[in-house]
Amino acid sequence: MILTDSVVDFFLETRKHSEDICQPLEIEDYVVQPVVDVSPPKWHLGHTTWFFEEFILKPHVENYVLFDEDFSFVFNSYYETVGKRVVRSDRGNLSRPSVKKVYEYRNYVTEGIKKLFETNQNEEINALLEIGIHHEKQHQELLLTDIKFILGNNPLLPAYSTAFIDHPIETHQKDWITIDEGVYEIGHNSNDFCYDNELERHKVYLHSYEISNKLVTNGEYIEFMEAGGYQRFDIWHAEGWDWVNQNQISAPLYWHKIDNEWHNYTAKGLQKVKGEAPLTHISYFEAFAYAQWKGHRLPTEFEWEAAQTFFPWGKRWEWTESAYLPYPNYKKVDGALGEYNGKFMVSQKVLRGGSVATPIKHTRHTYRNFFHPQLRWQFTGLRLAK
Amino acid sequence: MILTDSVVDFFLETRKHSEDICQPLEIEDYVVQPVVDVSPPKWHLGHTTWFFEEFILKPHVENYVLFDEDFSFVFNSYYETVGKRVVRSDRGNLSRPSVKKVYEYRNYVTEGIKKLFETNQNEEINALLEIGIHHEKQHQELLLTDIKFILGNNPLLPAYSTAFIDHPIETHQKDWITIDEGVYEIGHNSNDFCYDNELERHKVYLHSYEISNKLVTNGEYIEFMEAGGYQRFDIWHAEGWDWVNQNQISAPLYWHKIDNEWHNYTAKGLQKVKGEAPLTHISYFEAFAYAQWKGHRLPTEFEWEAAQTFFPWGKRWEWTESAYLPYPNYKKVDGALGEYNGKFMVSQKVLRGGSVATPIKHTRHTYRNFFHPQLRWQFTGLRLAK
Amino acid sequence: MILTDSVVDFFLETRKHSEDICQPLEIEDYVVQPVVDVSPPKWHLGHTTWFFEEFILKPHVENYVLFDEDFSFVFNSYYETVGKRVVRSDRGNLSRPSVKKVYEYRNYVTEGIKKLFETNQNEEINALLEIGIHHEKQHQELLLTDIKFILGNNPLLPAYSTAFIDHPIETHQKDWITIDEGVYEIGHNSNDFCYDNELERHKVYLHSYEISNKLVTNGEYIEFMEAGGYQRFDIWHAEGWDWVNQNQISAPLYWHKIDNEWHNYTAKGLQKVKGEAPLTHISYFEAFAYAQWKGHRLPTEFEWEAAQTFFPWGKRWEWTESAYLPYPNYKKVDGALGEYNGKFMVSQKVLRGGSVATPIKHTRHTYRNFFHPQLRWQFTGLRLAK
Amino acid sequence: MILTDSVVDFFLETRKHSEDICQPLEIEDYVVQPVVDVSPPKWHLGHTTWFFEEFILKPHVENYVLFDEDFSFVFNSYYETVGKRVVRSDRGNLSRPSVKKVYEYRNYVTEGIKKLFETNQNEEINALLEIGIHHEKQHQELLLTDIKFILGNNPLLPAYSTAFIDHPIETHQKDWITIDEGVYEIGHNSNDFCYDNELERHKVYLHSYEISNKLVTNGEYIEFMEAGGYQRFDIWHAEGWDWVNQNQISAPLYWHKIDNEWHNYTAKGLQKVKGEAPLTHISYFEAFAYAQWKGHRLPTEFEWEAAQTFFPWGKRWEWTESAYLPYPNYKKVDGALGEYNGKFMVSQKVLRGGSVATPIKHTRHTYRNFFHPQLRWQFTGLRLAK
Repeated sequence: MILTDSVVDFFLETRKHSEDICQPLEIEDYVVQPVVDVSPPKWHLGHTTWFFEEFILKPHVENYVLFDEDFSFVFNSYYETVGKRVVRSDRGNLSRPSVKKVYEYRNYVTEGIKKLFETNQNEEINALLEIGIHHEKQHQELLLTDIKFILGNNPLLPAYSTAFIDHPIETHQKDWITIDEGVYEIGHNSNDFCYDNELERHKVYLHSYEISNKLVTNGEYIEFMEAGGYQRFDIWHAEGWDWVNQNQISAPLYWHKIDNEWHNYTAKGLQKVKGEAPLTHISYFEAFAYAQWKGHRLPTEFEWEAAQTFFPWGKRWEWTESAYLPYPNYKKVDGALGEYNGKFMVSQKVLRGGSVATPIKHTRHTYRNFFHPQLRWQFTGLRLAK
Repeated sequence: MILTDSVVDFFLETRKHSEDICQPLEIEDYVVQPVVDVSPPKWHLGHTTWFFEEFILKPHVENYVLFDEDFSFVFNSYYETVGKRVVRSDRGNLSRPSVKKVYEYRNYVTEGIKKLFETNQNEEINALLEIGIHHEKQHQELLLTDIKFILGNNPLLPAYSTAFIDHPIETHQKDWITIDEGVYEIGHNSNDFCYDNELERHKVYLHSYEISNKLVTNGEYIEFMEAGGYQRFDIWHAEGWDWVNQNQISAPLYWHKIDNEWHNYTAKGLQKVKGEAPLTHISYFEAFAYAQWKGHRLPTEFEWEAAQTFFPWGKRWEWTESAYLPYPNYKKVDGALGEYNGKFMVSQKVLRGGSVATPIKHTRHTYRNFFHPQLRWQFTGLRLAK
Repeated sequence: MILTDSVVDFFLETRKHSEDICQPLEIEDYVVQPVVDVSPPKWHLGHTTWFFEEFILKPHVENYVLFDEDFSFVFNSYYETVGKRVVRSDRGNLSRPSVKKVYEYRNYVTEGIKKLFETNQNEEINALLEIGIHHEKQHQELLLTDIKFILGNNPLLPAYSTAFIDHPIETHQKDWITIDEGVYEIGHNSNDFCYDNELERHKVYLHSYEISNKLVTNGEYIEFMEAGGYQRFDIWHAEGWDWVNQNQISAPLYWHKIDNEWHNYTAKGLQKVKGEAPLTHISYFEAFAYAQWKGHRLPTEFEWEAAQTFFPWGKRWEWTESAYLPYPNYKKVDGALGEYNGKFMVSQKVLRGGSVATPIKHTRHTYRNFFHPQLRWQFTGLRLAK
Repeated sequence: MILTDSVVDFFLETRKHSEDICQPLEIEDYVVQPVVDVSPPKWHLGHTTWFFEEFILKPHVENYVLFDEDFSFVFNSYYETVGKRVVRSDRGNLSRPSVKKVYEYRNYVTEGIKKLFETNQNEEINALLEIGIHHEKQHQELLLTDIKFILGNNPLLPAYSTAFIDHPIETHQKDWITIDEGVYEIGHNSNDFCYDNELERHKVYLHSYEISNKLVTNGEYIEFMEAGGYQRFDIWHAEGWDWVNQNQISAPLYWHKIDNEWHNYTAKGLQKVKGEAPLTHISYFEAFAYAQWKGHRLPTEFEWEAAQTFFPWGKRWEWTESAYLPYPNYKKVDGALGEYNGKFMVSQKVLRGGSVATPIKHTRHTYRNFFHPQLRWQFTGLRLAK
């Protein structure tokens, strides 16, 4: 059993980190929602708080008084089990509750949790708290990428922070790693926290393959662009080709060509693209087309997991060729928490690794992230296999 | 020629009034755009300011330094003549410039105008200033109705202000006014300010008609609703009937039935509907259907203007049967200011009168307001004719 | 009272004319619906037949046996009074009833009417028959323009008929006609058939104006195009400008530039544009922009009617500046026939005249045609006023 | 090497079968396209013919004269390599070429192939002919299901044919088949024809599982419906739940409740639903929700292939849990024929088996069919695993 003290510390540290991420923002930045996939920062702050109130304080604190009855409606995301919710595309229309009120809500619930854990300790609420912490960590990544989108789509292109390095460099020599044919074990296998989608640990048969020890860089991708990669239908999926044409895509997200030189919007504002930095903000469609053009392919998530000890990772979420599907003997958790993963297991691709935006202790080698193939606002990247 | 002093006073009083309207807002309320027709309050504050900078300070102050070069892009509304603009549906995505910055912009331009008029007086800039003032007054009405929409569509239904009376009552006896057949003169005919669409003053032939001396009330409209008005296709235009069905309209905007009693969102928050108050927030389609059901009709804008001295008006903008079209010998002003009215003269209906949201000195008996027939967020109302 | 014999002859001649129009078609041409405004020819043939069955045979023939019960559903257009209908956008999905069956239906109903009128004569059914005949004549024009659209949008551009002259020429000298200021009488004033929208005859006051005795030609419009007319926002309505840009309009409908020369699809197939022929297949937006560019304007429908004896007309439906609105003291007919006109009196523009596609005895100087401002598939044209 | 004679016989028999499928149609039925996924029958007849002309006659017959130059534009489906094409959603707008002309085209090309193979024999063109035959067979299935959709969405619900049995019955006892854990070989492994997506044959590791020897029946599905299956969000994917609500789905495609009894449209017209017949015309979302409700799951395509010798199959295409992805070492064919499969390997689910609409010699135990998860117009079905 985990010691309560350390869980509470983990909790407080996590709560603080969400607020640290928002520290550079103006109040106005907390409110807007430029596209449906991006949520307003104040919504993330409220929603992660509501999760602790709804699943821990409400059922486990006697005579608990809700901070505000309407908040369960305003800050529920998709949990059909627990009542009505504001549809995702409307979140940016809500000027109230104010940011100030949301912070009061955070304090109220944080204090409520602290007090509960001073007087009460048991495995059930410890486990719930741990889920709530990981839930908030997951939102921290979205919070950061949503903030980047909110500022990076503003015509004034305001900087976010000089402290956040979104374009780190991999300095080691590029090489292929060879993995032998055989049966491999895949999935979570320790007592540490994991999501239900990482279970059950099971066997897969892998044919021999090679996988790069390094992410594809901006410079390599510029070669693809200059070779007409966005104009050659034969290297794209049919859906990818439609996406390119309907949206007139000709570069990664946040890239702008100015005076014939590529720039990209970064946490520090608009900068020249660094050729040696790992490529990011690309869709699965672009990752696939690049690999086709290069004569290679993307690894499956199983190939990635089996090989991951042989290369450094964590700077970019890496698109894989795998569709997001349940593992053999997958079991969805009961009740509202069971809505976390299973119901998304169709039409999405798996990403592996973690990125510069992933909070510490939030990713691991069995972690399965997933997005629709056209999405680009996460710090996505690309590793080749053959 | 107008005395400069009084114009400058008029200007300063107008500038202050815009800010007074926003005084009850939280910063977050300045930012959002729940539907395409509603603009964020900070955009109104910036746009009305940009108008003075673009059309007066920039051309008439030597070596004028723009407050911010990007603002002409951000705060241009629809003036194609003066460069790029943020499309209307994207205004709610802009967290920057911040509200603080917008107020600094206002002060900068207000001071610039003051200084210019201290040292410089001529008819041309006086006329431009007057247009700018009326432009800002026009936006003050939108500012108020947009704020109402922003708050009235928030699930928390926050109140705006107890000082603003949006549901005044007409206490006089309802009666029909009879107007004789004959030739009438229509259009502006004094030296006071008017828009180009009120000119030229011209003759129209009116057949004899009767017009009500009182606006239709909420109570009268509830009778229509209870008689199945929203279910009877035969009293609606074909387009109106499609609008009712596609949007599932069954009551005026802001009305909610709670415990079998009609409530509406007002400046003071949610309240019971007052039966004796004049109906508002209805579309032209609804106004027409009500009149059909009642066996009457809407007046034309000419009938309204010829009869307006015989009844009080100014509480609701009144839908007329007239389409928004140019008067005989209408002349569009040259240049960007000519984009003000003429280019909207298709597919819209004329409204006459003025409303509780109209700032003082901003309406008159020849004033022609215009909106598309489905719009309801203005303080629209309805007067019968036969 | 009209003699029955001549009404029956008029009826039979009208029935035959619809079928003559379809004579050049392949069976496949009867079925498709390339855009929502165009109906499949077999639908027109069935719908005009259904009108006689529904409003004359069913109520006036004892023990009348419907040809097919389902046809009242399939061939009702918009009459909400008489039950369900196939929505307009689905008509092109119906392969059945077959064309053969539709012709059997026509014969069945035509024979039914003949038999009824042999044994029965009264003013009520004579009046209904006359409406039905005019209804079918109105559809004959649509039938012809819909066929043109069906063939003219097929990439094979098949010819329709060499007998139909869709590009006649006006050979007289162009000149301005001057009309004096004063009160004019407008609207239908004989015992002949007319629609309810042409009544009541009433007075309007017209200021003095000039109107061209000739339609604008293709050659004149090419000058506008070559002067950049489609690129100059300042001569378009705001809605017109959006329409141009969203639909990438750069020429009238059916025009194609081949080897740097303008061609247009005609009843005879693709041909070089004749400069001296009157312009056609333009929207109201284009008509307005041309007039603005030329420094003139479109006449109102009243100006057109007051002046029409002084120029030849009937080759093109002419866009006017007037919105489609009820005349003073307009009275909608009771019941289903009352759905004919009144419910469309919003958001449309009036066209006057008649075109090469208008059947004989179907237009007159008080006839009011109406379409939405962006539509172009009718033989629309343009006459200037000032 | 395959003997030319038998290939030509196979070719002629295949050509005839397409025409036999269309034999019960009226000319009008060949033309319409009620939804984007359904193509007009004449388009299928032309497109399969174009394939032989484009890939065999044009490159391999000296001085070959095209039947009609425009047909390569009209009948190309999605092959970007070989020029322009009519976009899928516009196929139903084309009344020309006529059905008669399409049959002439078929004869012209069929004769051309016969003549070519009389004088010329080599492996390359034999292989191309075989692909063309299988391509046409694949379209025969679509032809049949598209015809069903065209007639089944017509309000008159005309029958197609009494000879085609679309609701056969599985009479054997329902039972679970147990398959042991281990490594299995998957993919095509003979010299017979197969598509590139069935290769390379490779190993997969399967954990032990059970699979039903029988398809789910209509009767079993009615139990799910009566238990509120379409109202319980917890058994649906999030995307499935949105699909149900946005499209108001409450039964399989073609089902109608009449007088409280379920009917479905069949090849013979509207009939009462047979409880013992295997369920069909369901989406993957519905298949998944049924399995969830039942406490079971769908098999993967590998589980299906490893177990398929133990149960009869071929009546319904069976949805699997597998996403449509390339096998290890998959190699796309070069050139236009390479556009056949690989570019669709994203966002689709694999179906296994074959259906009552699949022509003979066109399916096999390694055949991988694929559709988007919401599609229902194929004869899809459902087999449970656990």
